[in-house]
Amino acid sequence: MADTNRGVVYQGPGEVTVEDLDFPRLELAEQNGRPLQHGVIVKVLATNICGSDQHMVRGRTTAPAGLTLGHEITGEVIETGRDVEFIKKGDLVSVPFNIACGRCRNCKERHTGVCENVNRERPGAAYGYVDMGGWHGGQARYAVVPYADFNLLKFPADRDTVMAKLPDLAMLSDILPTGYHGAYTAGVTTGSTVYVAGAGPVGLACATACLLLGAAVVIVGDMNEERLAQARGFGCETIDLSRHADVGEQIEQILGVPEVDAAVDCVGFEARGHGPEGGEQPATVLNTLMDITRAAGKVGIPGLYVTGDPGASDENARVGQLGLKIGLGWAKSESLATGQCPVMSYNRQLMMAILHDRVHVARNVNATVIPLDQAPQGYAEFDRGAARKYILDPHGLLGAAA
Amino acid sequence: MADTNRGVVYQGPGEVTVEDLDFPRLELAEQNGRPLQHGVIVKVLATNICGSDQHMVRGRTTAPAGLTLGHEITGEVIETGRDVEFIKKGDLVSVPFNIACGRCRNCKERHTGVCENVNRERPGAAYGYVDMGGWHGGQARYAVVPYADFNLLKFPADRDTVMAKLPDLAMLSDILPTGYHGAYTAGVTTGSTVYVAGAGPVGLACATACLLLGAAVVIVGDMNEERLAQARGFGCETIDLSRHADVGEQIEQILGVPEVDAAVDCVGFEARGHGPEGGEQPATVLNTLMDITRAAGKVGIPGLYVTGDPGASDENARVGQLGLKIGLGWAKSESLATGQCPVMSYNRQLMMAILHDRVHVARNVNATVIPLDQAPQGYAEFDRGAARKYILDPHGLLGAAA
Amino acid sequence: MADTNRGVVYQGPGEVTVEDLDFPRLELAEQNGRPLQHGVIVKVLATNICGSDQHMVRGRTTAPAGLTLGHEITGEVIETGRDVEFIKKGDLVSVPFNIACGRCRNCKERHTGVCENVNRERPGAAYGYVDMGGWHGGQARYAVVPYADFNLLKFPADRDTVMAKLPDLAMLSDILPTGYHGAYTAGVTTGSTVYVAGAGPVGLACATACLLLGAAVVIVGDMNEERLAQARGFGCETIDLSRHADVGEQIEQILGVPEVDAAVDCVGFEARGHGPEGGEQPATVLNTLMDITRAAGKVGIPGLYVTGDPGASDENARVGQLGLKIGLGWAKSESLATGQCPVMSYNRQLMMAILHDRVHVARNVNATVIPLDQAPQGYAEFDRGAARKYILDPHGLLGAAA
Amino acid sequence: MADTNRGVVYQGPGEVTVEDLDFPRLELAEQNGRPLQHGVIVKVLATNICGSDQHMVRGRTTAPAGLTLGHEITGEVIETGRDVEFIKKGDLVSVPFNIACGRCRNCKERHTGVCENVNRERPGAAYGYVDMGGWHGGQARYAVVPYADFNLLKFPADRDTVMAKLPDLAMLSDILPTGYHGAYTAGVTTGSTVYVAGAGPVGLACATACLLLGAAVVIVGDMNEERLAQARGFGCETIDLSRHADVGEQIEQILGVPEVDAAVDCVGFEARGHGPEGGEQPATVLNTLMDITRAAGKVGIPGLYVTGDPGASDENARVGQLGLKIGLGWAKSESLATGQCPVMSYNRQLMMAILHDRVHVARNVNATVIPLDQAPQGYAEFDRGAARKYILDPHGLLGAAA
Repeated sequence: MADTNRGVVYQGPGEVTVEDLDFPRLELAEQNGRPLQHGVIVKVLATNICGSDQHMVRGRTTAPAGLTLGHEITGEVIETGRDVEFIKKGDLVSVPFNIACGRCRNCKERHTGVCENVNRERPGAAYGYVDMGGWHGGQARYAVVPYADFNLLKFPADRDTVMAKLPDLAMLSDILPTGYHGAYTAGVTTGSTVYVAGAGPVGLACATACLLLGAAVVIVGDMNEERLAQARGFGCETIDLSRHADVGEQIEQILGVPEVDAAVDCVGFEARGHGPEGGEQPATVLNTLMDITRAAGKVGIPGLYVTGDPGASDENARVGQLGLKIGLGWAKSESLATGQCPVMSYNRQLMMAILHDRVHVARNVNATVIPLDQAPQGYAEFDRGAARKYILDPHGLLGAAA
Repeated sequence: MADTNRGVVYQGPGEVTVEDLDFPRLELAEQNGRPLQHGVIVKVLATNICGSDQHMVRGRTTAPAGLTLGHEITGEVIETGRDVEFIKKGDLVSVPFNIACGRCRNCKERHTGVCENVNRERPGAAYGYVDMGGWHGGQARYAVVPYADFNLLKFPADRDTVMAKLPDLAMLSDILPTGYHGAYTAGVTTGSTVYVAGAGPVGLACATACLLLGAAVVIVGDMNEERLAQARGFGCETIDLSRHADVGEQIEQILGVPEVDAAVDCVGFEARGHGPEGGEQPATVLNTLMDITRAAGKVGIPGLYVTGDPGASDENARVGQLGLKIGLGWAKSESLATGQCPVMSYNRQLMMAILHDRVHVARNVNATVIPLDQAPQGYAEFDRGAARKYILDPHGLLGAAA
Repeated sequence: MADTNRGVVYQGPGEVTVEDLDFPRLELAEQNGRPLQHGVIVKVLATNICGSDQHMVRGRTTAPAGLTLGHEITGEVIETGRDVEFIKKGDLVSVPFNIACGRCRNCKERHTGVCENVNRERPGAAYGYVDMGGWHGGQARYAVVPYADFNLLKFPADRDTVMAKLPDLAMLSDILPTGYHGAYTAGVTTGSTVYVAGAGPVGLACATACLLLGAAVVIVGDMNEERLAQARGFGCETIDLSRHADVGEQIEQILGVPEVDAAVDCVGFEARGHGPEGGEQPATVLNTLMDITRAAGKVGIPGLYVTGDPGASDENARVGQLGLKIGLGWAKSESLATGQCPVMSYNRQLMMAILHDRVHVARNVNATVIPLDQAPQGYAEFDRGAARKYILDPHGLLGAAA
Repeated sequence: MADTNRGVVYQGPGEVTVEDLDFPRLELAEQNGRPLQHGVIVKVLATNICGSDQHMVRGRTTAPAGLTLGHEITGEVIETGRDVEFIKKGDLVSVPFNIACGRCRNCKERHTGVCENVNRERPGAAYGYVDMGGWHGGQARYAVVPYADFNLLKFPADRDTVMAKLPDLAMLSDILPTGYHGAYTAGVTTGSTVYVAGAGPVGLACATACLLLGAAVVIVGDMNEERLAQARGFGCETIDLSRHADVGEQIEQILGVPEVDAAVDCVGFEARGHGPEGGEQPATVLNTLMDITRAAGKVGIPGLYVTGDPGASDENARVGQLGLKIGLGWAKSESLATGQCPVMSYNRQLMMAILHDRVHVARNVNATVIPLDQAPQGYAEFDRGAARKYILDPHGLLGAAA
């Protein structure tokens, strides 16, 4: 490999830079040189900035300076480890953000988001993320994918087709499955009425997934009018939470009843109070969703909630304890489904929907391609609330496609 | 009907009495004389005292003085309304505690615990319970069951068989399905390891259901050693929470790992802190269960959580808001299932298991038959923690069976 | 009721006429005057001709002359029985073709297609159909619907909206749920590749349902080029079975592999051999579907198979015994799901999808409104293979909508 | 490895011998020397004779002379390939009979019975079986298990515990999961009434699984009175098909109705007609099961049906085409689930049930330990209908346990 590597590095609260990096190797120094002969090296064709990266960059976690970021990777296999049997050099692939071994109980039971063998601290790992096993980030020119035969989703199409649809296919590594998981675990199906909290990229991907699942009405709530306009652009109803504090009332204006069949939290722990006053209120989204979901309904919670949040505004939230109106949900026999999406449970199906033009997620989330070296600007604009999903283009191959 | 009626009446905090009552009619005065020609009158053969009755009797609710209590009814049909077509006089039946119309969306979708047509305030109704529609209680000699063709489970056995198994069959109206629902929604199945919080009658019924579902190991936690001994008596492991505050550590001593596959909360909002100090801590059970359930596991919550608790020790709990460690559950991709059991989803199957001797719930919960007139003593002993499930015997037909 | 009744009557093989009929009453003479005070009388606004009616009219059943036909009813409630509580005069409603009591085990378990209380011969009943309980047909100006609170789906929209969408809503009584059931039981979901056997109205409704369920590719096979053109018109791929005998080969040309994820039989027992020669071969569709469905896939079989077929070409088929290549299916671990659609399991959701413009089934099946008195021509044209779904318009209210 | 290998070899119709064999290597000559560095070598502690082996030995397949037999393997890992990461030398393990890669779509979706990468002819492979990929049989002293991290189930118990329970644990490689799969796919659950066709080891294991799943009544039918006595010994009802041709009538005598909730075919294509006359009738079990299963019920079909059966008595059966009364099943909305059990979906749970004494499958199937060298006698006795499940003991370690 004559080429050199380069990627996005977290430098401390509010600061990311693009740096030269070592070329990836099939071993993981951060886990005592763990050998990765089951892995491959991919040339990264597209790698997206994710809202969950922002938690780190905003300094809301214990991420160490020097961490390479990025867990949304789409690429071409350029080198395969000795024990890789079915994935071949030249394969064009999507990489699920969750790293999974394919050999533990959880992987065998399809819970690849909580693999037992890839993180020594607790179940579950991801690329370039704090407390997720020490795996290197994928916002780079090259990246390593372990357990490649298991983890990789190979695109069953020729290169031209893949390149033409790359902005859509790039969403398979995280936000489209994540949004779909939220919708699916909330029970969204043919004819559902749904409320999606949050119109960031995951929220918009979730709304997209709701429509793909056959929902009758998808209502998206956010405080960012530009993002809400994006949602309206592909057929959603919207509620501007900066102006309306009472979500049920707004839902009633749309549906005739103040409740929905299903609700999805695409916001997570950095939630803010509704209405003009606002302020950070980490439980507000969950409590709203229990309130506006109908009896026997379900709430999907792909939005991240943390076990500890040193930057939280109140003491309980700092230890991850939120004031939930659980009695309200109980009286209505509601169910709550939490956690990271096990991407592998959905990505093949969603890929088929993309390749056959049944879903246009890149358009819906306003995918925006920028060069790798402009990653810092992308992070900054995204943090300011741009209604965009930034795709980094490490090899300059996507310029025309954007 | 020459016979007179008589039943258990709530008189105020801490006091229940047995009083003469009007003979039931096929209409409901409390709902503007709502006609009940779809209903039947049953002669009550067995009617149990439930832990949820205790919430009212302890004065933790807004139950009005004069309310007839009781929602666990087993009986014989003695009169049928005009619109009853399939249930006949003489049928021996179990009455699900949830009242359901069989005609609304929720009932059609099997969510009979949140029927839309039987309570004008909100979905869901029950006999003899505060805020549950004004229906009369069944701790009485006679009771009315509306929508009888839909609600009633007819025993497909001769009278002698039914009478011989009545203490078991009496558990079909509430605690056996409720315990089963908790286990089922927690994902308990063949080979599961389970932690059941609470060794009251619902907890013991839940442990019974776990074993019926094929669980490998059922661990029951409580602070009442007598109740724990009851659990050990039918094959459960136990944890005495009055001595051990760390449930995970105790589980590890039993299983070798500090986690279970599934957990069920059979305690609810009147939970107390573990360990020697204790004190009321309404969120403690839920937080413990999220802690000791393995990644991708589920928590079933049949234990009652309320929307308002005027008697709670802290301000948040008074409005039904509890401090939940939701980030802990989220990191492990756990799911939570709440609400009242839709009894009809399980009672026919469980009846079959009882009639064919696959389950012995009366023995497991230490069912104890007492005359109707001794109900006040039953309430008092149960409140003091007796390891018994009291069955009232309004017509003196169960004496021999006990 | 000053108005008179009039409807479609089977006169013998090949002949239907439109006759004056008695005005319906809330009792069923054919079941010894069974009282129907739980029923309503509906003014029929739309009632469709179904492919399964053709089995009778072609003389392939033991249907008696004089039978009023029709089981696809949409209408307005004009009279309610004494025991009807929630449905009101003036309600606009869809009537599921399966008649169900809402009170037996099967209904409680959502298997409304095999209700135990509405047909004295065996589980399951329908309007105007041989061996299905003796209930009167709905291809008429007025019809009776028993157990109305349970059976009827009330449209939650104003009259103008309903009338404007009536050709779509009329498909809720049978073919849209039936097609959806076939797809659903075959496991069709996001990204599926599907083969639908048959491009009659049920096949086209099934293809519509597949797309609504998120299928990536829907391939429809038939011998009728006009019907295939209809399928292509809304995004399906097609296979002309009059020209191609090898379905797997044709699938491979479309998908690159000779298999699909899921397959649905919308043809049933009157299947004909593929390819130029043809001839009636009742097992050919089922064997083809087992052949072209991938390992671990499912086959949905909403197409009718009968227990006896006096007009069958071979002896085994006459007693409903078909030569199935079950070993082929077994080697691939396939599952087969048979039987009539339990309409109530799907119609509310599908109604929501129609009312919110997520599905256009009337367009896709080429719904064609004709006056009631032209029913005989409709039957004849449909029998000749017209690519149309005929809606009878008994009160002349749909003319403009067509 | 100083030890030598030795195993059971098929010599032609009716003849098996025990021969010296090459010591296994981590490559597969039969697939062009396919390397198996993901595999391990196990010292076989127990390996059972299976009814499906009998199909080969009876000459009903195209199995070539020289094939080593056996696919029910339990053992100790003595050597691990280079790519094996989590399984260690010394681990005591159960080997699922289906060989699976853990990397293809089917494996990722838990359909390990139809893995796409282990058999070049079609999905699915097994050890020592005709047309199943050429993998060596496990009725031997040593065997190779490929993809060991994925395929192997490690017993989480010390050696003494494992050895004490080995006759039970040995049933995890095939018949207990297979019987459970049949029951599970037939919908057997708490309170079910079930008919199990066949009282051979799989039928008895299925009946065991039904009870573990909570069935109320399990009825086993066979023509072998000794095997039926075995079934009665652990709580089943039985029907002697050599004396009674009408299964429904016999069921009615037991249950009061001529139908069961669920039925399982543990016989397969070598079925014989019921009643005194009999004779091979390959469709008779399937037709009986559709007849005696209630409306909306399911039929599980773990019994083997083949795509070709050169030894069949009639022409259609020779090409795997059986005369099924599909119209009968259709009229009752029944579902059929076919195919080999994906052992990995169930074996961990069932192991837990065994280790915690919830199930005693060895006793129920009358497990009988014999030395490896007595395999020919075991085959012969089993073929004559002995009510036994033979476990071969290649290293003489089980003698005491039997």
